[in-house]
Amino acid sequence: MTQNIKAAWIAVDWGTSNMRAWALSASGSVLAQARSDKGMGGLTKAEFEPALLALVDDWLDGPTPVIACGMVGARQGWVEAPYAATPCPPLSSGFARVASNDPRLDVYVIPGVKQMQPADVMRGEETQIAGYLAQNPNWDGVICLPGTHTKWAHISAGEIVSFQTFMTGEFFATLASHTVLRHSVAQDGWDDAAFETGLSDAYARPEKLAGRLFSLRAEGLLHDLPGSSARARLSGLLIGAELASAKPYWLGQQIAVIGAGALASLYVKALAMQAVFATQVNAEAATLAGLTAAYRQLKG
Amino acid sequence: MTQNIKAAWIAVDWGTSNMRAWALSASGSVLAQARSDKGMGGLTKAEFEPALLALVDDWLDGPTPVIACGMVGARQGWVEAPYAATPCPPLSSGFARVASNDPRLDVYVIPGVKQMQPADVMRGEETQIAGYLAQNPNWDGVICLPGTHTKWAHISAGEIVSFQTFMTGEFFATLASHTVLRHSVAQDGWDDAAFETGLSDAYARPEKLAGRLFSLRAEGLLHDLPGSSARARLSGLLIGAELASAKPYWLGQQIAVIGAGALASLYVKALAMQAVFATQVNAEAATLAGLTAAYRQLKG
Repeated sequence: MTQNIKAAWIAVDWGTSNMRAWALSASGSVLAQARSDKGMGGLTKAEFEPALLALVDDWLDGPTPVIACGMVGARQGWVEAPYAATPCPPLSSGFARVASNDPRLDVYVIPGVKQMQPADVMRGEETQIAGYLAQNPNWDGVICLPGTHTKWAHISAGEIVSFQTFMTGEFFATLASHTVLRHSVAQDGWDDAAFETGLSDAYARPEKLAGRLFSLRAEGLLHDLPGSSARARLSGLLIGAELASAKPYWLGQQIAVIGAGALASLYVKALAMQAVFATQVNAEAATLAGLTAAYRQLKG
Repeated sequence: MTQNIKAAWIAVDWGTSNMRAWALSASGSVLAQARSDKGMGGLTKAEFEPALLALVDDWLDGPTPVIACGMVGARQGWVEAPYAATPCPPLSSGFARVASNDPRLDVYVIPGVKQMQPADVMRGEETQIAGYLAQNPNWDGVICLPGTHTKWAHISAGEIVSFQTFMTGEFFATLASHTVLRHSVAQDGWDDAAFETGLSDAYARPEKLAGRLFSLRAEGLLHDLPGSSARARLSGLLIGAELASAKPYWLGQQIAVIGAGALASLYVKALAMQAVFATQVNAEAATLAGLTAAYRQLKG
């Protein structure tokens, strides 16, 4: 347990499956951090405040601002933070304030961003984008945020101009666990060459993807394709198809990839195979920088 | 219960999830039929014979030939019936004989068909193809068998020349049940216009599919897309992508679609939208005709 730490303010990244909190000093130093599996997906309205207090109670010494981002602001979350509409800065002014029971909590939730046509939504990624832009003022280009639902966002003059979501991460997990491919795709292990083959095949002929997936099963049965190779090839096929589809986003653009280690590295590698050189940015640092930018915007 | 029916032989379609049996007379008339949920996927080796007897015991009067097709012949099935390799007739001669405990049972399992390059396998569909060819001698063209794993098979001179499997049915079920799309895609209901839109979009630009699926969720959130429309559009997107990928199979060919009602009708409609007119064939009739052809080949 952390003790004798009193936060000037608290930053919270509250997603569907997990939550993470940081205690910050007035100057912006991280004094402590904590995480739990109390993601928004498993909580009723009444359970959000106890879930937060379980992580941050020790850090509270009188009324303390708490800035949160992510699915906590969805309609089924703690408080709905209505989407800002593109084109817009990643941090809009309409933070949603929570009516908490504990007087020590003064909680604000950052709105997500929506695009009306083609319809798309994000919650949480806008904060990472804001963090990246806070650290790289006047940056124009495209930000790729790999994850369960990978986002590609076109940034110009400090605004999110447009963005698109690809369910690649969720496809991978679902295909590998809930379809006949589970018999042929290992749960771990890797094969770089198989990743590159899958990526090249799907990128060059994305219209063939629908027919290539069952071959992972058939090659397992007929040619003893190792499960780790099937896993890497599946990842390559799906990321290759995404790159082909997202080409209007990345072609000829300056690219930053914000994401957790291994997955973000695959995107950087996949882009490099198309002779596109992307900067990789630590996701946690970008989130914390974005929450800090929001705090400064709110509290001046 | 059926009574006083004595089968000259018994036909069995034994898949992963279900089994179906028919009692036939010497002249080939169906005397009785029965089905159960004792699919191969849920049975150990020792459970196959009791599962069969539970359906057919009343029909047995002395040693009776039983001809079975489907996943019952897989490595994890009752007896492994090794694949025949393309190019080959749909019914090869290498039926696998089961060593049963009950002396009244004389069981043969039809081998599946494999293609070494590109790797692919089928078990059960070869019997439906054989049934269709038995009823349409000298037919050349392409047979589409929609299902959990849709097969496209090129038939020439009585042989399966090549084939390809698409996991479209399993994708649809998995995406609609196990991903974020489950919140936006209804479990039933339909919208013809949405199916046609999805089909046209994916067929025309299959490389865009990876980016189109999340829009079903976003349009549900932002534009109140009805769940039945999302369901039909998802189906159209996936079948459209399959048609684009399978184009080398169906372009300029005579086509027969063998399948259970609603799904097969969607394929016939989708092909008609590309100005390709396919014959629709009842799947159960094709299976029974194929098992009958196998019985005649074995005992004839």
